[in-house]
Amino acid sequence: MKQYSEMTTAELTALKDQLSKEYTAHKEKGKKLNMTRGVPSDDQLALCNEILTCLSSDDYKSANGIDCRNYGGLDGIPEMKKIFADLLEISPEEIIVGGNSSLAIMFDNVAVNMTHGVRDGVPWQKQGQVKFLCPSPGYDRHFSICNYFHIDMIPIAMNKDGPDMDMVEKLVSSDPMIKGIWCVPKFSNPTGIVYSDEVVKRFANLKPAAEDFRIYWDNAYAFHDLCLVAGSVPIKIPNIISLCEEAGNPNMPLVFASFSKVSFAGAAVACIASSKSNCEHIKKRLSIQTIGPDKINQLRHVRFFKDAEGVMDHMMRHAIILRPKFKLVVETLSKELDACGIAKWTEPAGGYFISFDALDGCAKRIVALCAEAGVALTPAGATYPNGNDPNDRNIRIAPTCPPLAELGEALEIFCCAVKLASAEKYLSQK
Amino acid sequence: MKQYSEMTTAELTALKDQLSKEYTAHKEKGKKLNMTRGVPSDDQLALCNEILTCLSSDDYKSANGIDCRNYGGLDGIPEMKKIFADLLEISPEEIIVGGNSSLAIMFDNVAVNMTHGVRDGVPWQKQGQVKFLCPSPGYDRHFSICNYFHIDMIPIAMNKDGPDMDMVEKLVSSDPMIKGIWCVPKFSNPTGIVYSDEVVKRFANLKPAAEDFRIYWDNAYAFHDLCLVAGSVPIKIPNIISLCEEAGNPNMPLVFASFSKVSFAGAAVACIASSKSNCEHIKKRLSIQTIGPDKINQLRHVRFFKDAEGVMDHMMRHAIILRPKFKLVVETLSKELDACGIAKWTEPAGGYFISFDALDGCAKRIVALCAEAGVALTPAGATYPNGNDPNDRNIRIAPTCPPLAELGEALEIFCCAVKLASAEKYLSQK
Repeated sequence: MKQYSEMTTAELTALKDQLSKEYTAHKEKGKKLNMTRGVPSDDQLALCNEILTCLSSDDYKSANGIDCRNYGGLDGIPEMKKIFADLLEISPEEIIVGGNSSLAIMFDNVAVNMTHGVRDGVPWQKQGQVKFLCPSPGYDRHFSICNYFHIDMIPIAMNKDGPDMDMVEKLVSSDPMIKGIWCVPKFSNPTGIVYSDEVVKRFANLKPAAEDFRIYWDNAYAFHDLCLVAGSVPIKIPNIISLCEEAGNPNMPLVFASFSKVSFAGAAVACIASSKSNCEHIKKRLSIQTIGPDKINQLRHVRFFKDAEGVMDHMMRHAIILRPKFKLVVETLSKELDACGIAKWTEPAGGYFISFDALDGCAKRIVALCAEAGVALTPAGATYPNGNDPNDRNIRIAPTCPPLAELGEALEIFCCAVKLASAEKYLSQK
Repeated sequence: MKQYSEMTTAELTALKDQLSKEYTAHKEKGKKLNMTRGVPSDDQLALCNEILTCLSSDDYKSANGIDCRNYGGLDGIPEMKKIFADLLEISPEEIIVGGNSSLAIMFDNVAVNMTHGVRDGVPWQKQGQVKFLCPSPGYDRHFSICNYFHIDMIPIAMNKDGPDMDMVEKLVSSDPMIKGIWCVPKFSNPTGIVYSDEVVKRFANLKPAAEDFRIYWDNAYAFHDLCLVAGSVPIKIPNIISLCEEAGNPNMPLVFASFSKVSFAGAAVACIASSKSNCEHIKKRLSIQTIGPDKINQLRHVRFFKDAEGVMDHMMRHAIILRPKFKLVVETLSKELDACGIAKWTEPAGGYFISFDALDGCAKRIVALCAEAGVALTPAGATYPNGNDPNDRNIRIAPTCPPLAELGEALEIFCCAVKLASAEKYLSQK
């Protein structure tokens, strides 16, 4: 079969007619399939159902004797801090365990820097127009936070080993109004790439023009290796906190992690990790902001997972469920699209997404075609600041939630939409 | 026995010597007693231990079919909204159930008004020096939020039926930089007074100079009547939300309530209630700020309490535990201090505190004497903005946490300290 780019007008017209018929047939089936967000499936959630019952009615004290039912304890119970610390390979003093949403912790952190400055420095909003670097495609909810606080977003190209560090270094060292950068260092959302050791080292050794520049290191998929099988070793990225310390930038990184895709997406525990000094500073604010996190829920997590090893064992069970879904996506895309020369996609070793690049100018059309045929996708452009993909080509595929059979159906429709939109594009250029 | 004010120097000197001996004897016992904060006792927490075990491993769906384990649902599960709605006598559309801390919800609300303005109006911080009215004595953590956001606090006198409304009306209607007022309308912290119907009506009918003025109505003790016995009726205050609507101020009140002193202080559920329109507005922000509240914890509360009536039954059991403690405080103070003419105190019908007024200039000394003898009290002045009690006389007594026997010991020491400080004061004036 010819690649689409090499087809004549007649060939393209015939192809388009054929694809239109296929598409109409799909549409007439009246499916309702959802691949919009990185949501765990029922099977995955069921892995954790014992969390619902793992406390007995006299089991409410943490190791240090704290009554988890009562007030007190701004930074989490010691056992939960230790689990996060072991997983992230830092010390418990560098961890504050919060509520169920790492997004809320990130939002808070940006909010307080706007109003009060970093570590009680000059509030960002008093300094002029704040800017963040946004490696793109990236996580739409990071960009939404910037948007909410009227922070200018500068897109940074994503390479296979992380953001374009030449550009990051150049901008960060020259513009004091650049106050932050959003990073998902392991199984990046949506590309699934893992930052190389070299990239992480260059991050730690940044020389920011702004002393209140911060790296927002959203390690959302830190333990989410699809390759995990008994005895296998998760992919490891260098420790940004210790590297920053070595580089003389001890307070630069703010690391976020969460059990939202480990235990229950809506009822998990999340944390922020940073230098001990930053943590002390954050705790001062928390003493005004809240009565403290839900320690009982932390205790549930501790009882269920026991320790970091327990978490990694559990992630293996997630991998068993997720691996066939990612495999199905990659195999279907390859079977349907390899020959056409109309798309590229990532084949991640973990995380929650596959990033799909269509022909330039086709993403919105593909998402619209899918929607019309009953397949809901993340809006085209959502992976770019302000929802603006300059090439209109990136689509985030979220294969985790639907059962395998439904995912197969959705992918069939998706591939048909990709082909149809691509044929339309080439035809329009003739 | 003579009142202290009528004593001669010789009598006061003898009294002081006697009290000093008593005080030294107390001190030598080396007690460690804590009455600093409004913390529930172990007995109270144990009333709820079934919350730890009330879900089974297949019980995770809310009435509307939502899987509480997964993402989704910014305003809480319907059953939990209904319980709050029934308790507060408003509609579920006027409720957003959040996490475990109503303080965090209040903090957030002030923070967003500073940066984004009320309902996306002009941000408070861009309008100049924001001011809040602070009925005093009041809740120190309200004042800490103002302090954190550099909001000027204007103390308002507290009468037996609520804040001095003449002053409130005068200031609110004349100064557009007054953007808020902190209220604890039922069993006010620390005085325990209940706002009268007339006061609540005057609140609803305020004519603020600032269109972005908000009433922060912290109904923290809405269900916390000490008088509750089977068949008795809780004290009722008028519904500020419906009264404001009737008065043409539908968006003025922000009501906060929490189960922190109903179920587990650190692992409960809290809510904000306001007009439907305000709630829609808040949800828009929450869609950026968080993945949503912990719905599983809400489901636990629903399973345990069942409905609003279940909550009120439960509060009766709290009252059985708390009533003897409040009685002991009031009786001890009366027995020890009535004859001396050196103090006044409140006798609340609910809430968590007794407010104690010593002679002017004596509160700090009393708290210091108590601390030295092993009784920790809330710092003197904490009940006033910026920790500054202009008369240095108010002390907040928090009798809920210690067991009855310890409370008795603490009160003995407290009364001794009050008498000693008062004798010292009168002597110094001779």
